[in-house]
Amino acid sequence: MNEPAQPATGTLYLIPVPLAEDAPDSATQPADVRAIVHGLNAFVVENAKTARAFVKRFGHPRPMAELRWFELDKHGQTDLAAPLALLRAGEHVGLMSEAGCPGVADPGAAVVAAAHTMGATVRPLVGASSLLLALMASGMSGQHFAFHGYLPTDATQRQQKLRQLEQAARRDKATQLFIETPYRNAAMLESLLATLQGNTRLAVACDLTAPSEWIRSASIEQWKRLPLPDLGKRPAVFLIG
Amino acid sequence: MNEPAQPATGTLYLIPVPLAEDAPDSATQPADVRAIVHGLNAFVVENAKTARAFVKRFGHPRPMAELRWFELDKHGQTDLAAPLALLRAGEHVGLMSEAGCPGVADPGAAVVAAAHTMGATVRPLVGASSLLLALMASGMSGQHFAFHGYLPTDATQRQQKLRQLEQAARRDKATQLFIETPYRNAAMLESLLATLQGNTRLAVACDLTAPSEWIRSASIEQWKRLPLPDLGKRPAVFLIG
Repeated sequence: MNEPAQPATGTLYLIPVPLAEDAPDSATQPADVRAIVHGLNAFVVENAKTARAFVKRFGHPRPMAELRWFELDKHGQTDLAAPLALLRAGEHVGLMSEAGCPGVADPGAAVVAAAHTMGATVRPLVGASSLLLALMASGMSGQHFAFHGYLPTDATQRQQKLRQLEQAARRDKATQLFIETPYRNAAMLESLLATLQGNTRLAVACDLTAPSEWIRSASIEQWKRLPLPDLGKRPAVFLIG
Repeated sequence: MNEPAQPATGTLYLIPVPLAEDAPDSATQPADVRAIVHGLNAFVVENAKTARAFVKRFGHPRPMAELRWFELDKHGQTDLAAPLALLRAGEHVGLMSEAGCPGVADPGAAVVAAAHTMGATVRPLVGASSLLLALMASGMSGQHFAFHGYLPTDATQRQQKLRQLEQAARRDKATQLFIETPYRNAAMLESLLATLQGNTRLAVACDLTAPSEWIRSASIEQWKRLPLPDLGKRPAVFLIG
């Protein structure tokens, strides 16, 4: 939006990638997304290897080696000059993260911001977001909510943060969402049950869209009376309300 | 989750409804959603008339008059006994709002919570959410964000709230999202440009998924140098970051 003399004429397509390998595309991807992916020859991606596998599985008509792949790095320090030059020249570019929606709990926002600066068209496509699906499925307020990413890994700091989120949920009547790396899910669940008040509602949604999808939404009191799920290695979203 | 002696054996499907009438289903709905809707004979809906039109357009094989429709009211005071009895008896039930994802900036959460209490399975389906699409397209942080629903309509209170959101965006490095009723969009945009600091980023995403989709993400300074869009009657999401 620097009022470029010649705005970029390409379109940056924001492409959601399925959340689970064993989720059928027919459950998570509108048909047009496939058609759009087939028409693109350049992709900005979180990881080139898995992105190629996804685009190939999606039936892209060209050999993968003929397509152009630009990797984002974790720190957003990626050199975006090449894909932005394509956009400027009128070529369309796809942006994808490893799973879910690019730029939401995942890298990609910097590319979108740069595209806006150039005056390129940005088109977000419909697909699966674990945060959105978890919020829908929680039965908690979707009128006000906040997403906090990852919480501190130190046990004491995590407990403190959980108390803060519980207070915020009550004060603002807002559902509080966060995520955890799968190998720490069990510790997080223990910490939640030990820290939160009995009448606070906790939802855990894991393996969303997969055949093994598992969702529980109940008060802490009720959680304590039920057998605990095995959350090991399963991507999960946690919600407090 | 009252550990019912006989948990409900039905599934509550959470069905996203297209955001715009002129958005092709192939752009917003995975194929399986259609198949699931075709298999349901009972729906909890925000408005029975428009829900029937949607289900009919979706090609449901049964006459609309043979399906069962249960309307939510605005205050969540709806008598849910009948649809919950169906779930208990093992029938599957669909939940839909007028547009977008049920329970997210829309009614429906109380039905989901009741289904969890009965031990029914809750299955959130993939579809279009204006909040999620706007966040992806904003180029702002999707690592931390908060959604605030509608802001106060009084001009002074709205200004105060906008200043609070601007502060929260900076303090927490969190994108702040909110919505407005379309006929107040122009007043909201004026208020935003008059209230926020020049280097604050503002995104407006309107008519998402429709052919008329329009998205701008720029600093307040840049917004002031560009011609303003006509936002009248166009559903919009506002983002501050």
